[in-house]
Amino acid sequence: MNDTISLLMNHRSIRKYADAPVTKEQVETIVAAGQMASSSSNVQAYTVIAVTDPEQKDKLKELCGQQTYIAECPVFLVWCGDLSRLKHAAERHLPEKQSYEQTTENFIVATVDAALAAQNAAVAAESLGLGIVYIGGIRNRSQEVSELLGLPELVYPVFGMCLGYPDQNPGQRPRLPQEAVLHWEHYRPQQGEAAVEQYDEVMAEYLRERTGGAKDTPWSVLMAEKLVHPSRAHMKSFLRDKGFLKE
Amino acid sequence: MNDTISLLMNHRSIRKYADAPVTKEQVETIVAAGQMASSSSNVQAYTVIAVTDPEQKDKLKELCGQQTYIAECPVFLVWCGDLSRLKHAAERHLPEKQSYEQTTENFIVATVDAALAAQNAAVAAESLGLGIVYIGGIRNRSQEVSELLGLPELVYPVFGMCLGYPDQNPGQRPRLPQEAVLHWEHYRPQQGEAAVEQYDEVMAEYLRERTGGAKDTPWSVLMAEKLVHPSRAHMKSFLRDKGFLKE
Repeated sequence: MNDTISLLMNHRSIRKYADAPVTKEQVETIVAAGQMASSSSNVQAYTVIAVTDPEQKDKLKELCGQQTYIAECPVFLVWCGDLSRLKHAAERHLPEKQSYEQTTENFIVATVDAALAAQNAAVAAESLGLGIVYIGGIRNRSQEVSELLGLPELVYPVFGMCLGYPDQNPGQRPRLPQEAVLHWEHYRPQQGEAAVEQYDEVMAEYLRERTGGAKDTPWSVLMAEKLVHPSRAHMKSFLRDKGFLKE
Repeated sequence: MNDTISLLMNHRSIRKYADAPVTKEQVETIVAAGQMASSSSNVQAYTVIAVTDPEQKDKLKELCGQQTYIAECPVFLVWCGDLSRLKHAAERHLPEKQSYEQTTENFIVATVDAALAAQNAAVAAESLGLGIVYIGGIRNRSQEVSELLGLPELVYPVFGMCLGYPDQNPGQRPRLPQEAVLHWEHYRPQQGEAAVEQYDEVMAEYLRERTGGAKDTPWSVLMAEKLVHPSRAHMKSFLRDKGFLKE
């Protein structure tokens, strides 16, 4: 195992930060590494907004479900899918033609481009000794986040990411056994099911240890509970209003 | 700059491979690194299918727009968004309740989970001296790819990824100036537009050099041409048939 793979294998989400600044240069280095990730046909259909202003971070904390680490981290990144650059290019060069920014395909392109860049940035940040945590809560109140950050049409917040020097050393959460997520030659549902049963025991034990016996819900029960509660049900109409996913 | 950041900054897509095998153990190491990426509420809503069978790879090449490197690479990974594990958990534990796998929110979760894992895997592969290229063409004929790989309901191919030892050393494609993709505190459209003008010149020069003067189309013109052609227009109905994006 080389140093890079060790770094990847050692990832854990960090939600408590030391009182040490993250510099503008560090953010630029981290985002530069993000930019080098692959992009579908070089469209680079994402924008990241780096928020350091305490008032702005505090408002974002409110909008993301009161996760205090958003206000506490020195830099909060908001990763956005962004088709507005492409749309402007089409309006400028081919104004007479219909353009197709609103397709599901282009929504996938923008979302994946943002995610690939963000994960490269996360790896770069961790290589510099920083810790990160992804914030899906940025989608809790998408419209208000959009207004706060001034996101125009065809730009949407996919997830946030806190950046800061770690002031905690949390244990690592076990992942699904590899047989669940890696299949050879074709999809093998039974292999996945057996792996989930195994994982249920591992995760129950992990929770039991972490909570001094107070919790031991198997993973598949947590997943069932998650799936029967509608989450962020506004996303479809929000995204359509932003110009995405119309076809 | 540390070794990991150097590795990230040195990325280029590889489409020609040496005649050297990629072992099962290497794939397992690479996917293990993928598994350590963050996942929304630990749902791990993705599955990757490693294809090594020459006949299967050849069929995938046909289905992905005849990109020969798909048949030529020793291992072809198909990264899938996968909500079927969650759906099974709900059916097993809470069969009496309605579940919400079909929301746009859950589609984003599955797509992002697949992308974060894949990018970690790409970085791990490159750290082992392998080369990769993402294959968006896996979405060209999604239904046939699904049938070939036996993908059940609530599993969809997001992108492919060729893996192999590089047998080429392509130049690195310049990315957008950082001002286009990194904004501070809030979204700044004008900053993006100025950066695109600058990039148009850089990319025209890059193409001119690469093609001995035959091509020099500015990036924004390429983007405009891309956007006025509908691409993979089947994605919405394909995904809905697979159980995604109904709400």
